Amino acid sequence: MVDGIFAIAMTILVLGITPPKPDISQAQAVLAGQIVDILPEIFIFIVSFLILAGFWLSHHRQFHFVRDIDSRLLWINIILLISIVFIPFSTDVAGDYPGILIAVLLFHINIIIIGLIFSYQAHYILQSRKLCDPDFDQKFLQGQFHRSVLIPVISLIAVIIAFVNPPVSLLVYLAIPVARFFLQRGGY
Amino acid sequence: MVDGIFAIAMTILVLGITPPKPDISQAQAVLAGQIVDILPEIFIFIVSFLILAGFWLSHHRQFHFVRDIDSRLLWINIILLISIVFIPFSTDVAGDYPGILIAVLLFHINIIIIGLIFSYQAHYILQSRKLCDPDFDQKFLQGQFHRSVLIPVISLIAVIIAFVNPPVSLLVYLAIPVARFFLQRGGY
Amino acid sequence: MVDGIFAIAMTILVLGITPPKPDISQAQAVLAGQIVDILPEIFIFIVSFLILAGFWLSHHRQFHFVRDIDSRLLWINIILLISIVFIPFSTDVAGDYPGILIAVLLFHINIIIIGLIFSYQAHYILQSRKLCDPDFDQKFLQGQFHRSVLIPVISLIAVIIAFVNPPVSLLVYLAIPVARFFLQRGGY
Amino acid sequence: MVDGIFAIAMTILVLGITPPKPDISQAQAVLAGQIVDILPEIFIFIVSFLILAGFWLSHHRQFHFVRDIDSRLLWINIILLISIVFIPFSTDVAGDYPGILIAVLLFHINIIIIGLIFSYQAHYILQSRKLCDPDFDQKFLQGQFHRSVLIPVISLIAVIIAFVNPPVSLLVYLAIPVARFFLQRGGY
Repeated sequence: MVDGIFAIAMTILVLGITPPKPDISQAQAVLAGQIVDILPEIFIFIVSFLILAGFWLSHHRQFHFVRDIDSRLLWINIILLISIVFIPFSTDVAGDYPGILIAVLLFHINIIIIGLIFSYQAHYILQSRKLCDPDFDQKFLQGQFHRSVLIPVISLIAVIIAFVNPPVSLLVYLAIPVARFFLQRGGY
Repeated sequence: MVDGIFAIAMTILVLGITPPKPDISQAQAVLAGQIVDILPEIFIFIVSFLILAGFWLSHHRQFHFVRDIDSRLLWINIILLISIVFIPFSTDVAGDYPGILIAVLLFHINIIIIGLIFSYQAHYILQSRKLCDPDFDQKFLQGQFHRSVLIPVISLIAVIIAFVNPPVSLLVYLAIPVARFFLQRGGY
Repeated sequence: MVDGIFAIAMTILVLGITPPKPDISQAQAVLAGQIVDILPEIFIFIVSFLILAGFWLSHHRQFHFVRDIDSRLLWINIILLISIVFIPFSTDVAGDYPGILIAVLLFHINIIIIGLIFSYQAHYILQSRKLCDPDFDQKFLQGQFHRSVLIPVISLIAVIIAFVNPPVSLLVYLAIPVARFFLQRGGY
Repeated sequence: MVDGIFAIAMTILVLGITPPKPDISQAQAVLAGQIVDILPEIFIFIVSFLILAGFWLSHHRQFHFVRDIDSRLLWINIILLISIVFIPFSTDVAGDYPGILIAVLLFHINIIIIGLIFSYQAHYILQSRKLCDPDFDQKFLQGQFHRSVLIPVISLIAVIIAFVNPPVSLLVYLAIPVARFFLQRGGY
């Protein structure tokens, strides 16, 4: 179920890229320009896809030792899935209006919410030994929790930058792989 | 198949939220207001997602002891899936016109139909011992049947309230978790 | 893969039902009428969903004894999937213009093509003993082939009726369960 | 995940075929002509579906001996999936404007990128013995790599032809099965 919803949300992201629809008689003259105009939409589509792919990987890592699901973990997942399913909408709005604060904030807040739920989920799994495989790797799960904090921090920085310069705030997510690399070298 | 259709229906719900499309020159001034205007759509999207998630959980619980599918159970499922697939449409209409009786009724009636089919399915499984695992838990299946009656009751109340106040009738579904909690305490 | 594409095609059928979008100020007066206007679309959506569900069941029955897939069976399946994926489009057009011959023909021809491919597939599997489980049930597979002929026959009748009365031709598919019932009683 | 995204991308291709929406009063007169007008869109939809089906088969063949996934193979796959998910968009644009160079180039470049990633993936798997089953078939994997080079070559030819005649360049992909046939006879 979770895998399916991730896959569908990641695929319908593409429906948010507005296909240019010039009149056929003018297409020769204006289509190239209109495709250039939607480059920001394509950029945000890629960023959004990568963030969802990252969340999906985290999800699998967090559940690596989970053998049982209690009612709270179930509801954490359902709330998580609502926020995931909302991403194609918030990406669509941010892609259409990357220069408008509120549009960009909608996207950042969507990511913050997902990030916080993931952090809480990592924390909850870490503390729920009875749901996990008896020989679970405490250090691995602690690592997952530490890793999960990165996204809310990055998206909070993106929110702050959005108030100064909305389009630039969308570039902040490109720092995730860089941050991951240095955290990994630092032993996190 | 059932899981796939649930997952897809729950994800394409988001396509029913109308993305605001103001002219780029006016976006700065009007986008925030237009996002506020679609808050009811977002609210109904969340309600609808939660109801579908609840139905999906019920479906898994009802089939927990089912080992075989006869032709009637197959057709119950196909009719069920049509009603599930219709939800993104009825949610879209109710989200666009939460103040109009007919729009809200379309949504409530969709939920009533799904709820009734689920009740009938729980009843049919309960009576079809030959389709179930020999050591099935009669009491568990009876509990599933009792639980399944809640949704049609709630959505019938929503229908009645809709005639008085359409938007408020959509809030009725928020009573589901509360009702479940008290029913559970009361031993149902 | 096949299951996934069937599930997605059956779910996105709902996107073909045009949601009424009256101005909010006029919605109270006109929405009910506009919902009545789309009843034919909802009817064709249900018919189309049922036909796809029937094809999906046939597919599983036809592959019941198949243990291996050769290059021809692979390509039969790929051509089949293109025709399945096209159904949301042809259903959309037929639902929008149930009174126009060409729209209704597009739908009927789509069904004929799928039906013929399914018949050919049943025939090919029946003759490809080397792809099947050694203890396959020849009579069962012959039955699948005989059953598979019904759909092209029904849709051919629908084509003929379409030239006289397009909307009525869409009702012809309702004869499928009736025909199946009598064929089954007659030992087919 | 990969299978799901392929299935969804291949199915939502159909949403790119613009359904004709003439006024109901004029539909009788103009609908047939408008359906003829979208034949190029239907043609490109089929080509695109077939290309994706081919990539999906390649993907399964390339992973036939893979038992483990390292971080690089994971990222190759994520980049691959972004390019796959982009196909419904580039197909939509090329289908709407098959006569405009930039629209057709968008599609060809999308295919080139997927083809190159697939070639690189085949190459990487071929060299990563530690990720593969110990008794993997080196010759089979080499064959996969050789096969994978065909698509970038074909789409490069399509790019060149596009500068002379955009619509004809879309027909180049029909050469794939022919080329495969002769390569196979030649022992590749």
